[in-house]
Amino acid sequence: MPEAGDSVSNALVQSFGIGVRQLREAQRWSQERLAENSNLNRSYIGEIERGSVVASLVTIEKLASALQLTPSALVTRGEAISQMNLVRGIKLMAIAC
Amino acid sequence: MPEAGDSVSNALVQSFGIGVRQLREAQRWSQERLAENSNLNRSYIGEIERGSVVASLVTIEKLASALQLTPSALVTRGEAISQMNLVRGIKLMAIAC
Repeated sequence: MPEAGDSVSNALVQSFGIGVRQLREAQRWSQERLAENSNLNRSYIGEIERGSVVASLVTIEKLASALQLTPSALVTRGEAISQMNLVRGIKLMAIAC
Repeated sequence: MPEAGDSVSNALVQSFGIGVRQLREAQRWSQERLAENSNLNRSYIGEIERGSVVASLVTIEKLASALQLTPSALVTRGEAISQMNLVRGIKLMAIAC
């Protein structure tokens, strides 16, 4: 089921990517290093981090394993970032109004 | 990135599907009803439940929303089922040895 159309607008996909990037950078790993450790393609890692592709459950599992956390914890991180951005957006709207 | 090859052998994919089915049945919903509520295809729901397709993060989000839990909670359920099956497997091996 192609879901390319969702990838740009979906908040969780964007936040998931930000979470992956943050965790990778916390390890001081390059995208190449994360790609090796997760058995994924380097350019695919870049696309995930930018939120331009939708990761599958298997990809989430591979990334989580490389970053030494559970798949659900990796998704939780994305949810938390998504929530923070939502709160920030509401605050900015409140300032603007 | 096609991952059809992973779908049959991946424990988390299988357990995720079992979790979705359990939660759907707990609501006394048909696959049709879950499909309507999650804006997914009925046959795709069947494939997810059987673990014959790998759900994407967007699909996980749609299913979780319909089943009234967070995406990470839905993944956690899959992980718990996977863990239980692993423990069961070890016990069976212990009996056999």
